[in-house]
Amino acid sequence: MCELLAMSANTPTDLCFSFTGLTRRGGETGPHKDGWGVAFYEGKGVRAFHDADASANSRIAEVVQTHPIKSEVAVCHIRQANVGDICLANTHPFMRELWGRYWVFAHNGQLSAFQSSPGFYEPVGTTDSEALFCDILNHLRTHCDRNTGTDDVVDRLVRLSSAYASQGVFNLLLSNGDWLFTYCTTRMASITRRAPFGPARLKDADVTVDFESETTPDDIVSVIVTEPLTSDELWDVYQPGEWRLWRKGEVIRSGRADAESRTLSE
Amino acid sequence: MCELLAMSANTPTDLCFSFTGLTRRGGETGPHKDGWGVAFYEGKGVRAFHDADASANSRIAEVVQTHPIKSEVAVCHIRQANVGDICLANTHPFMRELWGRYWVFAHNGQLSAFQSSPGFYEPVGTTDSEALFCDILNHLRTHCDRNTGTDDVVDRLVRLSSAYASQGVFNLLLSNGDWLFTYCTTRMASITRRAPFGPARLKDADVTVDFESETTPDDIVSVIVTEPLTSDELWDVYQPGEWRLWRKGEVIRSGRADAESRTLSE
Repeated sequence: MCELLAMSANTPTDLCFSFTGLTRRGGETGPHKDGWGVAFYEGKGVRAFHDADASANSRIAEVVQTHPIKSEVAVCHIRQANVGDICLANTHPFMRELWGRYWVFAHNGQLSAFQSSPGFYEPVGTTDSEALFCDILNHLRTHCDRNTGTDDVVDRLVRLSSAYASQGVFNLLLSNGDWLFTYCTTRMASITRRAPFGPARLKDADVTVDFESETTPDDIVSVIVTEPLTSDELWDVYQPGEWRLWRKGEVIRSGRADAESRTLSE
Repeated sequence: MCELLAMSANTPTDLCFSFTGLTRRGGETGPHKDGWGVAFYEGKGVRAFHDADASANSRIAEVVQTHPIKSEVAVCHIRQANVGDICLANTHPFMRELWGRYWVFAHNGQLSAFQSSPGFYEPVGTTDSEALFCDILNHLRTHCDRNTGTDDVVDRLVRLSSAYASQGVFNLLLSNGDWLFTYCTTRMASITRRAPFGPARLKDADVTVDFESETTPDDIVSVIVTEPLTSDELWDVYQPGEWRLWRKGEVIRSGRADAESRTLSE
């Protein structure tokens, strides 16, 4: 299994604090030592870092922890390999271009029997996760176009996610740089920080931050993870089948797919 | 204009020495301060770094200079913007997936009147370079498939490059991780280092390396650039219209498109 981390914010914000906590689980406080990756949107561009080594010992992870990279949407993953070798090509998050935007995907779980249909997008590596990502994009490209409204795209993502979830564990982070779609089958929680900001302490490292000194009163910053990162804040735990669509730090749509709807009909 | 750097090697090799020389031209010994990027293949995976700031002052560039990332194919670019804003989305090298491989592209020059045809791949940013890259991949996807031999793909790349070159300056680096295609209209030179290895001194920084201490007798490492990086080695300068296909450090095909052939007929 792996661990996921995402951020949605209404102002460019760095991920140093959360990333520091998560990456300790990559070989130090957790067993997710088989690679890590993070993608930061900056406008329509994406700055990505990937490493097939343990994040706890990675020189590049250390730079990302200490060098503030400001973003409104970030997606991060640390890997404990199950399907696919330990190599760079199998390291999340994965990225493809669709309709002139970069789409970024990270997945926690396993769908070992998943069979993708041939399509335009193809996996480069050998993980079920990348095959799922390509399947999602092939589906969107076939059934939608650049003018399809976000609500319709998200409705499809919910139906697809529910169908995948019926085949295994499918905790998902997916962004096109504008919005961030999150889907939980087993483990996901979020926290939204806004004024009045307070301090927070990481679970996985002896690090405390006082967000008040790093923010303005208008900032809204949400963090979504598979396991809460701090010990002194209240995290909002997702229910199985629950999905939330984030934009600029806030949930703009959410819902819960019931077990009966977890079939794909297109 | 911009500066290009690529490496082709028969064994995973770091780019620290050449990258150090090139990045000094990004705001220190040269005016190419509008961003930089580098992509390192590792197997079928790619480790990429991009920054819209000057490379001479970039913390991330400093890490790439000093942290040996070993690769058999690397593509690097420093930018002096002409078409397109200074932003991450306009920072080379650009990357897309085709036939289950990542393709990486960097370009020096300007084709300000270039009009791309609609196709599957679309630019995310606003540079003519990214539009050219998408045009190349759309062309390959339309006229070739995964089973097309490298010779046929390269023949098409030569014809396409010659057609672009008839519209402006088109110095090109393009790789699919297996081979590296290079095309020169105005400025390109290469050097192939093999045993017996000797020392080399950078033009742009007070740095000398003794390659003998960093290599084995079987290593073959070639570097391709728009302007030679060292002051004490003999670089092999490309002629206008000359192209070279590199694999594992050696030229495996080359040729020169004459002016008459610089039209596209498909």
